[in-house]
Amino acid sequence: MSVLAPKGFIATGGSMGIKPTGRPDVALLTTANGLPVAAAATFTTNKAAAAPVQVSRRHLETTGHQVTSVVLTSGNANAATGEAGEAAAMRLCSETALALGVAPTSVLIAQTGLIGIPFPLEATIHQLAPIVATLGDDEAAAHRAAEAIMTTDTFAKEVVVTGSGFTVGGMAKGAAMLAPKMATMLCVLTTDAALPSDQLQALLRRSVEHSFNRLLTDGAISTNDTVILLASGEAGPADPHEVEAAVTDACQQLAEMMAEDAEGATKVIHLIVKGAASDEEAHLAARNVADSLLVKCSFNGEDPYWGRVVSELGSAGVAFDLHRVTVSYGGTMVCEDGIAKTHDAAAVAAHLAERHVTLECDLNLGSGSATMLTVDLGYGYIDENRTTS
Amino acid sequence: MSVLAPKGFIATGGSMGIKPTGRPDVALLTTANGLPVAAAATFTTNKAAAAPVQVSRRHLETTGHQVTSVVLTSGNANAATGEAGEAAAMRLCSETALALGVAPTSVLIAQTGLIGIPFPLEATIHQLAPIVATLGDDEAAAHRAAEAIMTTDTFAKEVVVTGSGFTVGGMAKGAAMLAPKMATMLCVLTTDAALPSDQLQALLRRSVEHSFNRLLTDGAISTNDTVILLASGEAGPADPHEVEAAVTDACQQLAEMMAEDAEGATKVIHLIVKGAASDEEAHLAARNVADSLLVKCSFNGEDPYWGRVVSELGSAGVAFDLHRVTVSYGGTMVCEDGIAKTHDAAAVAAHLAERHVTLECDLNLGSGSATMLTVDLGYGYIDENRTTS
Repeated sequence: MSVLAPKGFIATGGSMGIKPTGRPDVALLTTANGLPVAAAATFTTNKAAAAPVQVSRRHLETTGHQVTSVVLTSGNANAATGEAGEAAAMRLCSETALALGVAPTSVLIAQTGLIGIPFPLEATIHQLAPIVATLGDDEAAAHRAAEAIMTTDTFAKEVVVTGSGFTVGGMAKGAAMLAPKMATMLCVLTTDAALPSDQLQALLRRSVEHSFNRLLTDGAISTNDTVILLASGEAGPADPHEVEAAVTDACQQLAEMMAEDAEGATKVIHLIVKGAASDEEAHLAARNVADSLLVKCSFNGEDPYWGRVVSELGSAGVAFDLHRVTVSYGGTMVCEDGIAKTHDAAAVAAHLAERHVTLECDLNLGSGSATMLTVDLGYGYIDENRTTS
Repeated sequence: MSVLAPKGFIATGGSMGIKPTGRPDVALLTTANGLPVAAAATFTTNKAAAAPVQVSRRHLETTGHQVTSVVLTSGNANAATGEAGEAAAMRLCSETALALGVAPTSVLIAQTGLIGIPFPLEATIHQLAPIVATLGDDEAAAHRAAEAIMTTDTFAKEVVVTGSGFTVGGMAKGAAMLAPKMATMLCVLTTDAALPSDQLQALLRRSVEHSFNRLLTDGAISTNDTVILLASGEAGPADPHEVEAAVTDACQQLAEMMAEDAEGATKVIHLIVKGAASDEEAHLAARNVADSLLVKCSFNGEDPYWGRVVSELGSAGVAFDLHRVTVSYGGTMVCEDGIAKTHDAAAVAAHLAERHVTLECDLNLGSGSATMLTVDLGYGYIDENRTTS
C-alpha cells in the first residue's frame, strides 16, 4: 500500500509521453477529500537546483506548508532548462490543480531524469487529465505511483511502517547520483498522524539526516533531490517522537532499497566507523571511506585490502592515530593497532563473496560512531553512465 | 639526464628484491662530492603517513634541511607497518649512509607500493651496497633511477628545465591514488642553483601547489606522497623567481606525464574553470568536477553530457548562479546562461574522440580561475584496482 497505507490519501501513476519508451512517467498523490494537510519537505543543497525544486519551495512558503497534492515525473529532470523549465513546472502544477479542483499552489512537484534537456511540455501536458481520472485508494494505485517515478531503478521502492495508532507509508526512486546531503532521489512519505507542519518539518529533517544522508553510492549531489512528507491527521494526534522513529525507519528502509538497486553495483557495503572523537567526525571518516574509488574497486574484486581503508581514514580530516586503528570485515579483524593482524582469511573471503558486506573501523579515540551505506564500483556503473543513449 | 642534468649529483637504480618480479625497485641519488646541500620537501597530508615520510621529516629537521642523499624504493609502501616499518626505513637510510660514507640523518627516504604489508628488510638489505657501487653521472644512471621508482607506471617520468645559468632536473612516479594535496607519487628534483634551504622550501611549496596539487585522477590522498628538491649550488647564485618558475615548469611537466599514465585512463582532461568569485573558489569548483564519477564516465563514453558538469559546479560549495554558466568542449560552447545552446555537434564529437580533451566552464561571476588535470573512468581503472594480485 506504501503511500496509501495511511488514511486519507489517493494516488495513481501513468504515462504522459515524457519517456520515449512509453513507460510510466507521471505519478500523483493527493488528499482523498481534496483539502490541504500539513506538509514537510527537504530538497537538494545543489545551487543548480532544478525548476521543480524552486517551484515546490515557493508553494510550501506560499501555503504555509499546507498542501493537497504532489505530482512527480520521470524521464526528464527539468534541470538547467531556464525560464521555460520553470514555466513548465508551474504548468504541471496548475494542470494537476485544475483536474483535481484544488489551488495550484497547493500542488508540490518533483521531477527526475536527464539534465539540460528542454521539458517536452506541449507534447505531454494534455495526457495529464486522463491520468488524474485514474486516482485510486488501493494497493494497485499505490504501486502505479511508485512505478511511475522509476528511471534506471530496477524495482519500485515502497515501504509501510506501523506506529501505535498511526501509519507511515513511503515510496522512492534512486539508483545513481546518490550522496549524503541528498541524492538523485525522490521520496514521498505519508502519515495519518496529526502533527503541525513545523513539528513535521523538524522531524523529517532529522529522519533524512539519519537515512538518505547516510547513503553514498557515487558521491554526486543531484539537482533534483526531494523528500516530501504529508500528514493527513486522520488517525488523530500522535507522539511526535514515535512519528519521528517511524518516519526514520521508513526512510532507512527506502535508503537500503536504493543501495540494493544502485546502478551497476554488485554489493551493498554496510560501513561502521566507531571510536571517533565525535559522531560528526565518525561520519566524516565514514564518508571518506565510502567515497573512495579504490575501496569500492576492492569490494568489487572481493579483496580485503584494508590498507586503502586506513589511508582514507587518515585523509578524512578528523582526529586519527594510525597506531590505534582496527579494521574488520564481517567481524573478522584484519588490522589491529594500525598493522596487519593474523586472521582467518577463509572467513574474510567467504564474507566478501556475499552480496551484503560489513566493514567496521574502530579509531579507538573516543565514543563517536556513524554508519554509512555504500556499494562497490565495477563495470556495471561505467556501462550505465558512460553515455546517456 | 633528468636528476643528473644539474651539476653535482650522481644516481643509480637496481633491484634489491622487494618486487617478486625482480624488476628494479631501488633508486639512489646523492651529491657527487658526498657533502650535504640545501634541501626542501613536501609530504602527504594523510594522517596515516607512512614510515619513510616520518623518517624523512625527522632527518630534515635534524640536519636543518642539509642532506646528501635520497634512497627510494618501490613495491612496498612501508605504510601501516608499525614500529618494524619505521625501523626498516631507518635501516635503509643507515645502510645507504654506510655505503656512501655519509651521516645517516643526511639521507632522505621515499617508498611506494602496497600498504599494510611488512617491509621485507632482512631479505633485501644486503642487496643495497652492491647497487650503491653502480652510482654514475650519465644519462643511463639517471634513467636507471627513474625506472626503479615505477610501480604501475608504464613509462619513466623524467624532465629537464634549463634556466639562465642553472638547470632543474626531475624524476617522478605516479599512476594511481592521485589527488590534490598530494598523490601517491614520489618526485625528486635537483638543481645546481645556489639558494638557501628556506627559500628553496618556500618555492617548492608554491610549485607543488600549482602542479601536482592541480592533478586529480582518483581522488585518493596517499600515505606516501613525497616531493624532494636538492640544490647543489654548483651553478652559483640564481634569481629565486627564475628558479621557482623552472621548478614549477618541471613539476607541471611531470604532473602531465602522470595524467598521461594514469591507471586505466583513456583520456587526459584539461579542465578550466573561470569567472569564479576567487581563484580559490575556481579551484574548489574545478576539483568537484574533476572528482565526479559521472563526469569521468561521460568522458570515457565521449558523451558531452554538460548537465552533469553544471550539477557538479552547483554542488561545489562556491558562489554560483545557474543562469550565468557556460560550458564548452574544445572551444565549442554547448551550454550558455545555464541552458542548452545550439552548437556544432560534429565538432564536439571530434574533440571528445581525441586523447587530450579540454572542458572549459565560465561561472561569469568574477575573475577567479583555475586549471585542473584529470582523466576519464573506464574498465581499465577497475581492472587495475579490483584486486592487488
